[in-house]
Amino acid sequence: MTTVAAYAAPAAKAPLERTTIERRAVREHDVLIDIKFAGICHSDIHQVREGWGEAIFPMVPGHEIAGVVSEVGPGVTRFKVGDRVGVGCMVDSCRECENCLAGKEQYCLQGQTPTYNGIGRDGEPTYGGYSEKVVVDENFVVRIPDGLALDVAAPLLCAGITLYSPLKRFGAGPGRKVAVLGMGGLGHMGVKIAHAMGAEVTVLSQSLRKKDDGLRLGADHYHATGDPKTFEELRGSFDLIVSTVSAPLDFGAYLSLLKTEGTLANVGAPEEPVSLNLFSLIGGGRSLAGSMIGGIAETQEMLDFCAEHGIGAEIELIAASEINEAYERVENSDVRYRFVIDTATI
Amino acid sequence: MTTVAAYAAPAAKAPLERTTIERRAVREHDVLIDIKFAGICHSDIHQVREGWGEAIFPMVPGHEIAGVVSEVGPGVTRFKVGDRVGVGCMVDSCRECENCLAGKEQYCLQGQTPTYNGIGRDGEPTYGGYSEKVVVDENFVVRIPDGLALDVAAPLLCAGITLYSPLKRFGAGPGRKVAVLGMGGLGHMGVKIAHAMGAEVTVLSQSLRKKDDGLRLGADHYHATGDPKTFEELRGSFDLIVSTVSAPLDFGAYLSLLKTEGTLANVGAPEEPVSLNLFSLIGGGRSLAGSMIGGIAETQEMLDFCAEHGIGAEIELIAASEINEAYERVENSDVRYRFVIDTATI
Repeated sequence: MTTVAAYAAPAAKAPLERTTIERRAVREHDVLIDIKFAGICHSDIHQVREGWGEAIFPMVPGHEIAGVVSEVGPGVTRFKVGDRVGVGCMVDSCRECENCLAGKEQYCLQGQTPTYNGIGRDGEPTYGGYSEKVVVDENFVVRIPDGLALDVAAPLLCAGITLYSPLKRFGAGPGRKVAVLGMGGLGHMGVKIAHAMGAEVTVLSQSLRKKDDGLRLGADHYHATGDPKTFEELRGSFDLIVSTVSAPLDFGAYLSLLKTEGTLANVGAPEEPVSLNLFSLIGGGRSLAGSMIGGIAETQEMLDFCAEHGIGAEIELIAASEINEAYERVENSDVRYRFVIDTATI
Repeated sequence: MTTVAAYAAPAAKAPLERTTIERRAVREHDVLIDIKFAGICHSDIHQVREGWGEAIFPMVPGHEIAGVVSEVGPGVTRFKVGDRVGVGCMVDSCRECENCLAGKEQYCLQGQTPTYNGIGRDGEPTYGGYSEKVVVDENFVVRIPDGLALDVAAPLLCAGITLYSPLKRFGAGPGRKVAVLGMGGLGHMGVKIAHAMGAEVTVLSQSLRKKDDGLRLGADHYHATGDPKTFEELRGSFDLIVSTVSAPLDFGAYLSLLKTEGTLANVGAPEEPVSLNLFSLIGGGRSLAGSMIGGIAETQEMLDFCAEHGIGAEIELIAASEINEAYERVENSDVRYRFVIDTATI
């Protein structure tokens, strides 16, 4: 066991504060990682606030982890000390079910083990990336290619893969018109990745406030969803829309922006059920889909893709003491586009 | 112009009665078809009753037409007198939009011309298959292969293609588990076609009343959705569910029956919006899709497939004088599984 410094919420809705936690001794297949940077994902805030149901406290959030390997277990074959690595939203899964065997560990039929706010298969609570070090089984660790700086790579481990997976699955690429709905931490990654995949990219955002950024990051077009004309102009335009929005949407209106047989893929979602007229799907052979992060191999593929295309997140680097303030700013959509904690400041 | 006998609803909700209508003279690319059989589709009843909005009267329903060519226009190249042919849900489209050019005339961006209850591109109302003859542009006529009897072929023109298209698009085939939701005119075609495609087929029906039929027609399994145990037992079972049901459904419950990344394709739909929790899509990477009939080339492909596999509809052949009674029986789900009008009795 190693005692390491961390930032934790001691109880639901409480501010995060500096504390210490125990990390397990490195086992046969474990990697000890010196965490360098940890991204702040909106879901960290949901979980600290218990917006998604009862949570485990104290909670050390953080599932966008970038660091350097400092020790490896005797059975580790994929990493060595000094390797630059990342850990995303999960640190284990059953490894036996058809989804795990198919490399879709995020959909593990027995339930994947979340990087924090979970109970590991050893019965111990999991603690996330807002800390100095973490111990993870090598099968849930990915390599950060040399070309990618660790700070801008950290958010790729959740925001990056969350967008990469549906963009790839639903065919973003040359000749395809893709809209990214929402221009936040998730959305801005979607713009960069879809552009790099060769798609013609449109941002659909509430206002034109971030238009310059959107175009700079790779969007070909930028429209305000607050303007009803957008829906007239863009009717039947897109092969794929990826929605990163968790506010309730008029799904009929967004489905009408799809071409025939187009897909509206949701990676964000309102907590309440939405109302949907099925004729908006049937009339154009359209699909409403969901997608949740990606598997481990796919996460590695995404990192390699991002390195090849020079893609990192747009970040605001903060000290650990600024986490609570950063949470408030995330809740006010006041971040361009991802806070990343310099864990040297913990 | 030719005067032909037909059965028509003179006004909304009125019983159908024998009358005469005018069919246009055969034009350059037209085919005159002596109608032999016309299926009764539930949508005929919806339209006669104005359940889908204001309709055009008098209305001659019928978009499941099987007959024999009796005259061809001078420019007709695909058919000759004596050919066995079918006409489905549409008799024209713009032929220029990207969907028409892609063979998806059912999704014509300018709107396809329905076989009845529509206005043709010549400005004249269209009249359907409950009549002695019909004149249709050869591009919207398909060939009924020799191996298929015309009476059991008629329902393939709507019910058959409505199921064939999503089953093919979403990959029904060997090694795939497919559920057909609803065991009626549409559903029973789904069972036959999915079985012929090589899928492992499950019927999900309200009760086990039609179980023997389902198994005889090709289903491997048959479950009652009225039994809550069905949803426990079949959780995460299917690659694809095709819903033919137009009653409101608990979509969350049916989505839970899908495997990871499975699709629930709707060809029937309740008129009212449904309530949907998007997490039921996101958690398993699932899709809720819609599908509407199929294109002309795909309809031909479906007929060839059905002939090859000896698939026709299960029908109850009726005289035209029985149409109104048949409508009542369809509304009471009292038909196994499609009424077909012998048009010689008109």
